[in-house]
Amino acid sequence: MSEKAAVLVAGSWGTALASVLADKMDVMIWTRNEAQKDEINEEHRNERFLPGVELSPRIVATTDMGEAVAGAKAVVIVAPSSAMREVARSLKAYWNEEMTIVHATKGFETESLKRMSVVIAEELGCEEGRIVVLSGPSHAEEVVKRCPTTVVVASLVEEQAQRAQDLFMNSYFRVYTNRDMVGVELAGALKNIIALGAGMSDGLGYGDNAKAALLTRGLAEITRIGVEMGANPLTFAGLAGVGDLVVTATSRHSRNWRAGYMLGEGKSLDTVLSSMGMVVEGIRTTKAARTISEKYQVQMPIAQQLYHVLFDGIEPRVAVEALMGRDRKTEMEVMSLETWEQWHN
Amino acid sequence: MSEKAAVLVAGSWGTALASVLADKMDVMIWTRNEAQKDEINEEHRNERFLPGVELSPRIVATTDMGEAVAGAKAVVIVAPSSAMREVARSLKAYWNEEMTIVHATKGFETESLKRMSVVIAEELGCEEGRIVVLSGPSHAEEVVKRCPTTVVVASLVEEQAQRAQDLFMNSYFRVYTNRDMVGVELAGALKNIIALGAGMSDGLGYGDNAKAALLTRGLAEITRIGVEMGANPLTFAGLAGVGDLVVTATSRHSRNWRAGYMLGEGKSLDTVLSSMGMVVEGIRTTKAARTISEKYQVQMPIAQQLYHVLFDGIEPRVAVEALMGRDRKTEMEVMSLETWEQWHN
Repeated sequence: MSEKAAVLVAGSWGTALASVLADKMDVMIWTRNEAQKDEINEEHRNERFLPGVELSPRIVATTDMGEAVAGAKAVVIVAPSSAMREVARSLKAYWNEEMTIVHATKGFETESLKRMSVVIAEELGCEEGRIVVLSGPSHAEEVVKRCPTTVVVASLVEEQAQRAQDLFMNSYFRVYTNRDMVGVELAGALKNIIALGAGMSDGLGYGDNAKAALLTRGLAEITRIGVEMGANPLTFAGLAGVGDLVVTATSRHSRNWRAGYMLGEGKSLDTVLSSMGMVVEGIRTTKAARTISEKYQVQMPIAQQLYHVLFDGIEPRVAVEALMGRDRKTEMEVMSLETWEQWHN
Repeated sequence: MSEKAAVLVAGSWGTALASVLADKMDVMIWTRNEAQKDEINEEHRNERFLPGVELSPRIVATTDMGEAVAGAKAVVIVAPSSAMREVARSLKAYWNEEMTIVHATKGFETESLKRMSVVIAEELGCEEGRIVVLSGPSHAEEVVKRCPTTVVVASLVEEQAQRAQDLFMNSYFRVYTNRDMVGVELAGALKNIIALGAGMSDGLGYGDNAKAALLTRGLAEITRIGVEMGANPLTFAGLAGVGDLVVTATSRHSRNWRAGYMLGEGKSLDTVLSSMGMVVEGIRTTKAARTISEKYQVQMPIAQQLYHVLFDGIEPRVAVEALMGRDRKTEMEVMSLETWEQWHN
């Protein structure tokens, strides 16, 4: 009998990870949506989330979470951050200690601002070290076409990360391990703010020079707050940081970049959200960052200006011009580690 | 009488920096090419290097270096790396200690592998601290359109960097200072290797995921060698490193990216070079990196594979696949600072 993995929910990234796993094992994917279940099982398609892609027949969908998880060696959770607690709570009845638990969701819980692995561990009633996060520069649309992709898996317990590495690794999907789970989760979530900002700069018609400046200063900003929250700054120089930031901020595949682009063109937040038809994690994360920035007393100028655009009706052009600043500075003021040292002294 | 700056040679970046300066002072640009001189003075154009761009009438071209430099408060040298020594040698007769000397050339001297500021200081017979380097994410094509751009100026002597900051800074051209001249010069030169590699990945039809992985690992690689050569690793996280890498590796404006793209498509080095019609610094730098890598005993896997493609006739696909590697790794092995610490222990 061949091995089995379960994937909890059938969005674009969940379906793409199911495709990677289906190259070496059976996969059951759980969805609440009957029509989506039928589409996956009968047509081997998930048109809303991965248009035009033919899925492996080894991917079987079900609306019964117990059936999805039964006998699985691993459970991969890719719920939107707002649904993570509820999905993990449902999983509690079906998982067991033999299973590798991986999540690939980038964001914070809205009110508590908890990281996803914390939310999952609370609901499963297990140590956080049981949970693995998977992150990195990986557009779902490319992964399902087997384009070469590298990701990072992190866990507080190294053995768990290695199990996740073995689970996913294949010739086109390279998996690195990292022990800094906090950093990988924070980088993955926070970089969506910078991707929104990069999209906005593009939507305003600024060029590659402006976007590169925004990415550089954005990376410094999210590293700074990440370090305050317990992350290793090096993680932000790796696949979950620089790598994911580059791919998210420079590609039209990215929902966060596209949302920012539409805002930069002058569209309202309501128009953007209704036209996306999918969750834009960067918008939620921008709200979360405001609270985090106050709590940890770390300035996040890019996140702050984006907040003004999203929720205070400030014109994107005014916000980006505020970011360009006016006074003469040394570069080290906008960079990560030196600033971090300043904060610690 | 208004102030004056001199720019030595009229390539695309030299002409773009002349345009920035012409927003607040007179600029004389030196060229050896009579036809180019006439085109700039009579038509206010430099079609070969900046097609379709109308230049300021405050930019006047001359083939007489003495005339270009006479009375200038600053001299900006943007010669190709291979011509830098000769240009600096000619300048010796005309410069004086009152002038700010800035260079904006990314590369090493071919045989000696000296940095550009060392070459200039040797030829002028002055301290290296008299020289300022200007670098960062800045496509000439966008700068001449006054798109928002940020750059960094670095010098061993802070006052010199500040003078260069004052010289260039305006509402669309933001200038940061940095004291790590070695790092700024190395990052600017070495990042062209990674840009070549990114272009090659694109030319092979690999996707954004693969390119992001290459950029992340490339940044780690050039940081590692930079630190061995005396740079501050933080400089590689700044505008001259991450910023310039992103803009060079993700934009069709970039000559290095385009050269890599053509190689990835299967074109020969000769074909690529003859079709570019301009210097591709990344190709020279790849050759230099091989020598540097041996001298400092630091592995540069991306530079090494590119060398094989450029000079040993290895197929681009084989080279990129070698880079994707095969064995399981922790992420920290491909990252900069941790590796750097290992090298120091």
